Amino acid sequence: MGQTLDGTAVGIGVPRVVIIGAGFGGLRAARALANAPVNVMLLDRTNYHLFQPLLYQVATAGLSPDEIAYPVRAIFRKQKNLEFRMTEVQQVDLAGRRLLTNTGEIPYDTLILAAGGETNYFGLDSVARNSFGLKSLADATRLRNHILRMFELAAQESSPEKCLAMRTFVIAGGGPTGVECAGAISELIRLVLAKDYPRLNFDDVRVILLEGTGRLLPGMPDRLANATVEKLKQKHVEVRFGAQVTGFDGTQVTLKVQDAGGAVPDSRNETLPACTLIWAAGVRAVQLVDSLGVKQGSQGRVLVNSCLQIPEHPEVFVIGDAAFLSTNGDGSKPVPLPMVAPVAMQQAAVAAENIQRHLAGKPLKDFVYKDPGSLATIGRNAAVARLGRWEFKGFIAWVLWLVVHILQLIGFRNRLVVMINWVWDYLFYDRAVRLIE
Amino acid sequence: MGQTLDGTAVGIGVPRVVIIGAGFGGLRAARALANAPVNVMLLDRTNYHLFQPLLYQVATAGLSPDEIAYPVRAIFRKQKNLEFRMTEVQQVDLAGRRLLTNTGEIPYDTLILAAGGETNYFGLDSVARNSFGLKSLADATRLRNHILRMFELAAQESSPEKCLAMRTFVIAGGGPTGVECAGAISELIRLVLAKDYPRLNFDDVRVILLEGTGRLLPGMPDRLANATVEKLKQKHVEVRFGAQVTGFDGTQVTLKVQDAGGAVPDSRNETLPACTLIWAAGVRAVQLVDSLGVKQGSQGRVLVNSCLQIPEHPEVFVIGDAAFLSTNGDGSKPVPLPMVAPVAMQQAAVAAENIQRHLAGKPLKDFVYKDPGSLATIGRNAAVARLGRWEFKGFIAWVLWLVVHILQLIGFRNRLVVMINWVWDYLFYDRAVRLIE
Repeated sequence: MGQTLDGTAVGIGVPRVVIIGAGFGGLRAARALANAPVNVMLLDRTNYHLFQPLLYQVATAGLSPDEIAYPVRAIFRKQKNLEFRMTEVQQVDLAGRRLLTNTGEIPYDTLILAAGGETNYFGLDSVARNSFGLKSLADATRLRNHILRMFELAAQESSPEKCLAMRTFVIAGGGPTGVECAGAISELIRLVLAKDYPRLNFDDVRVILLEGTGRLLPGMPDRLANATVEKLKQKHVEVRFGAQVTGFDGTQVTLKVQDAGGAVPDSRNETLPACTLIWAAGVRAVQLVDSLGVKQGSQGRVLVNSCLQIPEHPEVFVIGDAAFLSTNGDGSKPVPLPMVAPVAMQQAAVAAENIQRHLAGKPLKDFVYKDPGSLATIGRNAAVARLGRWEFKGFIAWVLWLVVHILQLIGFRNRLVVMINWVWDYLFYDRAVRLIE
Repeated sequence: MGQTLDGTAVGIGVPRVVIIGAGFGGLRAARALANAPVNVMLLDRTNYHLFQPLLYQVATAGLSPDEIAYPVRAIFRKQKNLEFRMTEVQQVDLAGRRLLTNTGEIPYDTLILAAGGETNYFGLDSVARNSFGLKSLADATRLRNHILRMFELAAQESSPEKCLAMRTFVIAGGGPTGVECAGAISELIRLVLAKDYPRLNFDDVRVILLEGTGRLLPGMPDRLANATVEKLKQKHVEVRFGAQVTGFDGTQVTLKVQDAGGAVPDSRNETLPACTLIWAAGVRAVQLVDSLGVKQGSQGRVLVNSCLQIPEHPEVFVIGDAAFLSTNGDGSKPVPLPMVAPVAMQQAAVAAENIQRHLAGKPLKDFVYKDPGSLATIGRNAAVARLGRWEFKGFIAWVLWLVVHILQLIGFRNRLVVMINWVWDYLFYDRAVRLIE
């Protein structure tokens, strides 16, 4: 055993694999290297792995942050070849094979860049400033506090206009996050908060889901997308298609609305008084990758070859939301893989395998995505699911959604506590975490 | 039914009782007035009731905030004569019988001031700026984040001096909060974090409990206080008596140390390199009461008569930490009641009864405190308890402590989830909420 420049004890000559990000991809890659002849250093800005698919439940007071976050160090206690560091990577020096972080320099032999995505505001500054994203725990608790505060303020507000804007919740983006968020907010308000505020009018509370295109849930078949619209309407969510947000000042959303139906598409501007805009309309690769100086595809994602490497820097693998795969491995035309957990996890496995293949002098493997399907829940007893060629909706899809998400959580305690909360909320129409912290 | 000036529908002529604070006292008073011929308005800065005795467990990653906080509106859903408002009272206009708040004016006929206490820094500005109090949820999560961050930073620190200061935790104040906090921090570090940081030295981690006087736990008999010192030492907590903090700059605690033993007490100054100072050495009534312009006793507490009223303003009752009772009701010499939940709750019951007696034209009742005893836990299997003339220590006292605290929590879900966490932590030496948020 020897000593590297930064004081960490490592085997001399054992390659150091540094992984940026402890999300779905980074975690899977780190585990896959457990028995490889390498030293793994895993880096993350936070000290926990976040189960992002349930973030919207933290934002709607159903779960508490600790139930969907798990300390990274606890996950890797038994993995002897891994060291974790909580640090923020500020720059990747590709030529020097080192990372510049807020706690110093970290050299690498091989890098797995699994830094994920962030909210994409498409240059809409007022939206970036005033709306609520949903990518981090801080985002989620901030949104929860805001929603609850709106009702406390509305209960004391004398102006009917202001009071209505406080009770109007606009969600931009009709993907899974937007759909799940809209359904959950509507249920929080109508099933729970309505009982908390007996003196407040709940008939004119509005939850509005805006989608720029003509349909919801791009990953779903038409039949399920249409069922989702129906179910959302039943749950008192207004769904508006062809509506694009152009700005938000904290009290008013400005829209460009495309009127469908006419021979010539007609667009007009509209304003919507609302104190809450939730931005689920765009994701992009984290800005860290912009400084790499390599080719990027749509949404800022780094172009990688079929083995998931940056072509000019084969020692750097990019996976998950941060990566743009220009072909699907089979030589077909360029297809951007969706920014979802299964892509990141499958790519992590291939990146880890390729690192071991390289060390063993074997040829690298191409990545081929196997789409496991897609799930989205709308609320109580309501979800849609596509699994291979199977389609489900309603109660069965909802139970499927519950089981899949419980199983994917890390740690028995988290599974148990989340399950208790779900059963509790289902039986008693409750959301226990409605605290303004 | 009529309309008051602020728009709330109330019965004409029905007196309005306003209660400031939804702590132990305010909550009990509000409930006790459920069937009284009055309208109750309950005010609090937050939207939840906080179970303060378990705050230190939030600070040491054992419990999550929602497990010890309960939405006030959920508590009072069925109490028809009560309205809750989340607001911050900025001034009490005793002459005008109205409150000035950050959301407008609130008039009252009768006021119950149950605004509680806050951390008392005794004018030590550097301590107020840099140390950690433990009175609110925000305090607790801030402290939790800080403790965990110290280990993440220590794991990456090259200077041995800095690294040691990051792993030195000083708690000032040997009351129940200081004792429980010191025990819990030591267990968090040695039972849990030691497993998370295999590369970090834990032999020189220091947890130091400082007490200005010569003994711990003022409310406990000597025998139990001494047993507490022994138990803390077993749990690797250094207990130092006669040590008074004079300042803290974030990296170094300055002390005045009284050397006991000599015929003439000798004091000297000392410095202690440490990045963490937890201030559990003083509490005072909230500063709101300073602006009342009435007589205050020690710790800023408002002097009340034996019926708990401000003598010049019999329509104002003050209870709990904010009140100073100048006699114990039986005409004995002035005695400041301890700033603990049982005092607040018993006073709440008497204040509520006196309001109803006044409305019924009956003479008011004097408050007499019945001391139910005192409990403090040091850690796993270790606590001390005084119940009437009975004294317990060790495992029995610890079980007693667990039962009493579980029963006092509000809500079945919170009891269940806290119990699960405690069993889990006990069996697996875990603290699940060790997130740096």
